[in-house]
Amino acid sequence: MKNSVGVIMGSTSDWETMKEACLILEELEIPYEKKVVSAHRTPDEMFVYAETAIERGIEVIIAGAGGAAHLPGMVASKTELPVIGVPVKSSTLNGMDSLLSIVQMPGGVPVATVSIGKAGAINSALLAAEILGIKYPQIQKKLKERRDQIKQRVIAESDLDAE
Amino acid sequence: MKNSVGVIMGSTSDWETMKEACLILEELEIPYEKKVVSAHRTPDEMFVYAETAIERGIEVIIAGAGGAAHLPGMVASKTELPVIGVPVKSSTLNGMDSLLSIVQMPGGVPVATVSIGKAGAINSALLAAEILGIKYPQIQKKLKERRDQIKQRVIAESDLDAE
Amino acid sequence: MKNSVGVIMGSTSDWETMKEACLILEELEIPYEKKVVSAHRTPDEMFVYAETAIERGIEVIIAGAGGAAHLPGMVASKTELPVIGVPVKSSTLNGMDSLLSIVQMPGGVPVATVSIGKAGAINSALLAAEILGIKYPQIQKKLKERRDQIKQRVIAESDLDAE
Amino acid sequence: MKNSVGVIMGSTSDWETMKEACLILEELEIPYEKKVVSAHRTPDEMFVYAETAIERGIEVIIAGAGGAAHLPGMVASKTELPVIGVPVKSSTLNGMDSLLSIVQMPGGVPVATVSIGKAGAINSALLAAEILGIKYPQIQKKLKERRDQIKQRVIAESDLDAE
Amino acid sequence: MKNSVGVIMGSTSDWETMKEACLILEELEIPYEKKVVSAHRTPDEMFVYAETAIERGIEVIIAGAGGAAHLPGMVASKTELPVIGVPVKSSTLNGMDSLLSIVQMPGGVPVATVSIGKAGAINSALLAAEILGIKYPQIQKKLKERRDQIKQRVIAESDLDAE
Amino acid sequence: MKNSVGVIMGSTSDWETMKEACLILEELEIPYEKKVVSAHRTPDEMFVYAETAIERGIEVIIAGAGGAAHLPGMVASKTELPVIGVPVKSSTLNGMDSLLSIVQMPGGVPVATVSIGKAGAINSALLAAEILGIKYPQIQKKLKERRDQIKQRVIAESDLDAE
Amino acid sequence: MKNSVGVIMGSTSDWETMKEACLILEELEIPYEKKVVSAHRTPDEMFVYAETAIERGIEVIIAGAGGAAHLPGMVASKTELPVIGVPVKSSTLNGMDSLLSIVQMPGGVPVATVSIGKAGAINSALLAAEILGIKYPQIQKKLKERRDQIKQRVIAESDLDAE
Amino acid sequence: MKNSVGVIMGSTSDWETMKEACLILEELEIPYEKKVVSAHRTPDEMFVYAETAIERGIEVIIAGAGGAAHLPGMVASKTELPVIGVPVKSSTLNGMDSLLSIVQMPGGVPVATVSIGKAGAINSALLAAEILGIKYPQIQKKLKERRDQIKQRVIAESDLDAE
Repeated sequence: MKNSVGVIMGSTSDWETMKEACLILEELEIPYEKKVVSAHRTPDEMFVYAETAIERGIEVIIAGAGGAAHLPGMVASKTELPVIGVPVKSSTLNGMDSLLSIVQMPGGVPVATVSIGKAGAINSALLAAEILGIKYPQIQKKLKERRDQIKQRVIAESDLDAE
Repeated sequence: MKNSVGVIMGSTSDWETMKEACLILEELEIPYEKKVVSAHRTPDEMFVYAETAIERGIEVIIAGAGGAAHLPGMVASKTELPVIGVPVKSSTLNGMDSLLSIVQMPGGVPVATVSIGKAGAINSALLAAEILGIKYPQIQKKLKERRDQIKQRVIAESDLDAE
Repeated sequence: MKNSVGVIMGSTSDWETMKEACLILEELEIPYEKKVVSAHRTPDEMFVYAETAIERGIEVIIAGAGGAAHLPGMVASKTELPVIGVPVKSSTLNGMDSLLSIVQMPGGVPVATVSIGKAGAINSALLAAEILGIKYPQIQKKLKERRDQIKQRVIAESDLDAE
Repeated sequence: MKNSVGVIMGSTSDWETMKEACLILEELEIPYEKKVVSAHRTPDEMFVYAETAIERGIEVIIAGAGGAAHLPGMVASKTELPVIGVPVKSSTLNGMDSLLSIVQMPGGVPVATVSIGKAGAINSALLAAEILGIKYPQIQKKLKERRDQIKQRVIAESDLDAE
Repeated sequence: MKNSVGVIMGSTSDWETMKEACLILEELEIPYEKKVVSAHRTPDEMFVYAETAIERGIEVIIAGAGGAAHLPGMVASKTELPVIGVPVKSSTLNGMDSLLSIVQMPGGVPVATVSIGKAGAINSALLAAEILGIKYPQIQKKLKERRDQIKQRVIAESDLDAE
Repeated sequence: MKNSVGVIMGSTSDWETMKEACLILEELEIPYEKKVVSAHRTPDEMFVYAETAIERGIEVIIAGAGGAAHLPGMVASKTELPVIGVPVKSSTLNGMDSLLSIVQMPGGVPVATVSIGKAGAINSALLAAEILGIKYPQIQKKLKERRDQIKQRVIAESDLDAE
Repeated sequence: MKNSVGVIMGSTSDWETMKEACLILEELEIPYEKKVVSAHRTPDEMFVYAETAIERGIEVIIAGAGGAAHLPGMVASKTELPVIGVPVKSSTLNGMDSLLSIVQMPGGVPVATVSIGKAGAINSALLAAEILGIKYPQIQKKLKERRDQIKQRVIAESDLDAE
Repeated sequence: MKNSVGVIMGSTSDWETMKEACLILEELEIPYEKKVVSAHRTPDEMFVYAETAIERGIEVIIAGAGGAAHLPGMVASKTELPVIGVPVKSSTLNGMDSLLSIVQMPGGVPVATVSIGKAGAINSALLAAEILGIKYPQIQKKLKERRDQIKQRVIAESDLDAE
C-alpha cells in the first residue's frame, strides 16, 4: 500500500520531537514515510519532495521545523495537499519564533499549524488521521475508538484520592 | 448537495473576518453552511453542533473566535472531523491571545490553526479545500488552477517600474 | 457537611500544582472535593460536573489547566457559581498561553484568574475562602487570623542580619 | 440597603472602562458605591478604604487600574474581602503591563483578575454577582435569567444569512 | 553598468516600505533592480531569481517581507551572495512575526536582518552600500560624506530652544 | 554615622538577588540598612518604613521585588526620596512581570528601575552611589576610581588569545 | 545659576515626549538645559556631552530615546552622574524595544529607567527632582507640596457621581 | 596578510558564543582578529577600535553582545564598514532584549543582525564571508563548496530509518 502521510523535518535534531507523530501514525496503522528535508540546506530537494508528493500517493504532509521555520510554508507553496506544520521548540525563544514563522502565512497558502513541541507532533498525526478519515471511514472509526479509550482512562484516573 | 464545510464563529462581530472564508468557499463552489455558535454563551448548542456534524454530512469545520478563544478546541473535542481554527484579531492583544488559546491544544485533540485575522480566514477556506481535495479530485484541480492564476498575476505585476 | 469547593483540573499532571490549593483548603477546614475533569478528553463529563455543581452544594469551583486552557472558561459557561481559574505553567511558553486562555474571557462569562503556577493554586484556595467568607463569617475570621500570623512571621524574619 | 459592591479605580480616566461594571450592577439591581482611589496619589485613603470596607457592609471590591496597576493588589492586602482586579488597557503596552501587575500576585494575597479592558469591567460585575449569588439566591437567579436571555438572543441571531 | 543590488519583496503591498531602500540607493548612485518575487505564490521564480543573481552581476540582495516572512531566508538558501532581510510591519503583530521569521535562521544560512519597517528599508540600502563599499571605495567615500552631512544637520538642529 | 541607603525587599527569597546590592554598598563604604518589608503581607509596616525614611536619615531607597512587584511603587508613593526598583527574576515569566509592574508607573510617582535580577541589584547600589555622589563628592570619586579599575581590568583581559 | 539637569534626546522627533520633562522642571524651578544628542548620528558629541557634564555643573542627566535606544546607556558609561532613561514609544513595537534597550544594562553601568512615553518623561523630571532634593532641601519641599496638591485634587475629584 | 574580519564582544563571558564565529572563519581561512571591547566599560577603546578599523585593513566587523546590547550599534555609528551584530542569549530574557537592542536601529545606521546565540555566531562568520566573497572570489567559491558538502551530508543522513 502507498504511504498516505509524508513526515518531514528540517533537521535530524527535530526527530526527537517528530517521532511522536510517527508513533501515532503507527498506532493508527496509517502508512507513512519520513525524511529529513531542509528548507535551507536542501532547498531543491524540498521542492522536488513537494512537487512529487501527489503523484507518489501522499495525501497529507506533516512538516516539523524550528526557529525561522520555513519548511512547512515552502512545502505548502509547492503542493495542493494539506500541509500540517509542527513548531519545534527552539533553544532560545521556546518555539515562539517557530510558531510565528509557521502560522502567520499570508492569505493564499495555508499551513495547518498545531501546538509547539511534542504535543504538536502528536496532534499533527491525529489531525492527519482526521483529514484522511473523511475519505477512509475506517480511520475515522479508529480515531473514535481511540478517543473513547482515552476518555475511559481519564474517567478511571479522575479520582485523585485513589492516587 | 450536502454542505461539506461548516463555518462557525463565536460572535456576530467575528463575521467581518469570517466572511472572507465564505467568499473563498463560494469561489471554489464548495457548499457550506455558516452559523454563530458561541462556546461561552451557547455551550450546549455548540456541543450539539459538533456532535451532529458528521451525520449531517459536514466534512470539515472552520471555527473562528477571538480572545480566550475556546470554540475551535471545544468543537474539536466533540468530533472526529478536522477542525480549522481562525484566531480573530482581538481588540486588546492583537490576536496573540486568540492564537495561543487556539493553537496550544494538548496532545490528543488537534486544531488546525491558521494565521490571525482575515488572512487566516482566507487560508481556513483554502485549507478546507485542500483537505476535501484529497477526496474530491475536482476541488484539488480547482485549487491548482487558482494558484496558477494567482502566480500569473503576481508575475504580471512583478515589474514595479510599471506602476 | 457538604463540600463547598470543587477543585478540578484538566490532567493528573496538574495535580502537582493544584494540590497546593487543597492544602490551603484543608488548613482552613473548608470541605472540598477534587477531580480530574478534562475539557478536551471528557467534555461531556465536564458539562455534567458544571451543571450539577449547584445542586450538589458546591459554592465555588477552582479549575486548573495549562496550554490552551479551556476548562475554567467552559465550566464558567455552564454554571452561575464563581469559577476561579489557575493557569498551570506550561512546558513551552511558561504559562503565558495558559494565562491568556483563561483570563481573556469575553464579556458575559467571567473567570476569576489568579497567578501562574503554584502561587496561583495557593491563591485560588484563599480567594475561594474570601468568597465563602462573606457568607460564612468563621471563614473570614480564619483568614484574618492566618494573615495576622503570616504578618507576624514576616516581621519576625525581617531582620536579615539575623540570618 | 447597604452597598454590597465597592467599585474603585485609580484615575478618573479609568471611568470610561469601569462604568461598564456599574451598568451591569445596576441591571442586576445590586447596590454599589464608586470612587476614585489612587494607589500612588492617595495611598493613605486607599488603605482607609480597604480597612473600613467590611464594617461599611461592602462584600466585594472591584478595582480597576492600568500600567503598573497596584490598586487591586494593595487593596487585597488590606482586607479579607474578595477583590476583583480589572486591567485597564494602557496606552503603550495594550494592557499587558496592567494584566501582569494585577494577576501575578504572590501566594498569600489573591486578586480575582478578569480580562483586559471593557470586557473585563463587564465581567468584574458579573463575577461580583456570582460571588454574592452564593449568599443571596435572588442574585444567582437573576444571573441565570440573564444568561438564558443572552443565550436566546445569540440563538436568534445565529443565522448569518438573515443579516 | 550592471545592477549591483537586487531589491525584491514578497508583495506589491510591501512597496510602500521598500521604496525607502530604493530612494537611498538612488541617492548613493548605486545601480539596482527591483521586483516582486513571492516565496509562496511564485516559489519557482524566486529560486530562479536567487540562482541567477550572481551571473547577472548582482552583488547584494535586499529582500523585504512580512508575517511568516520566508523570502529572505529562502533566497539566502539559494545563493552565496549576502542577503539583507527587511521585516515589513505586519497588520496584526506589528512586525514581530516578520522579524522572528527572518532573523532566527539556523546556523548555516545567514540573513542580515535590519529593523522593522521603513527604518529597516533605509538601513538595508545603507548596509548594501557599506558592503559594496569594501570593494568600491567611491561608495564608502559617499557613505562617509552622507554621514558627515547628517551629523552636521543634527548638530545644527540640536538647539531645541531655536524651534 | 546614619545609614544613607535603605535596602528593602518583599521576601527573604529575594535576598539572594539583593545581597549583590549590599556587597557593592559595602565596597563603596556607604552605610546602609536592610530589611524585609512586604507590600502584600506587611502593608502597614511598609508605609511606616516609607514615611519615616527621611527623618531616619535615609537618602535613597532600594526596593527589590518579583512578580506583581508593588513594593517599589508603593514605597515611592509614600516618600519624596528617590526609590530604585530592582525587578527580581520570577519563577514563571523570567522577571518580565516584575519589570513591567515596577517600571510602568503612572506620571506622578517615579521609580528608578534597573535591569532584572542580580545585574539589576548591582546596578541599584551603583545608582544609589551616583545619586549620593552629587551630594558627597568622595562617593563620586570612589565611583570614578572603581570604573577606572574595571576599565583597566577589561583592557587587561581583552586579548582572547591569551586565554 | 548653573543648570542642574541636562535633558537630552536622540532626535528632534523625541521632543514631543521629552518636553513633558521640561515642563515639570520649569514648574519646580529647576534650571536645566536641553539638547538633541544622537548616539548614532553624533556619537563624538554625545561623548563630549557626557564627559563634560560634571564640570559644567550638571548633576542629573535625563536621556530619552526610542527603538534600539543606546543614548541613556552610552551616556551613563561616560559619566558618574545619575542618568535617567526615558523609553520613547517606538512606531513599531510600542516602546518595548526602547524599554529593553535602556533598562537591561549589564552590572556596572546603571540607567535609572522610567515608564514608556510621556508618563515616563514626566517621571524622569520628578525623579531628577527627588535626586536633587536630597542635596537641596527646598526641592524636596516643593515635591512634597506638589504631591499634597495632587492628592487634594484626586480626593476632590474622587466622587464620580459628581461628574 | 592583514586581518579582514574583526570579531569583538562585550565581555569575556560572550566568548563561549562568539568562538563559533571564529571557528567558521578559520575553516574558511579568513584572517581575523578577536578582542573584548565593552561599550559600557571601555567606551573610548570601543570608539578607537571602530575609528581605526578601516585603516588597519578590517573589512567587516562582527560584534556580539547581550542584554542592553549597545556594542554593535555604537561601533556601526563610528565606521562605514558593515557591522554584523550577534545577539548573545541573556540570562533573564533569553536574548529577546539583546535582539531588540541590536536590530531596531534607527534609519541611518544599520547593523546586520543575525539569530540569537551560537547559531547567530556561526551565521555572523558566514555572512562576513559572503560579504568578502563579492570582493574575493575564492571566498565565494569556498562558501559554495561548503554548502555543497553540507547539502550532501543532509541528503546522506536524510533517511531516518537508517538511524
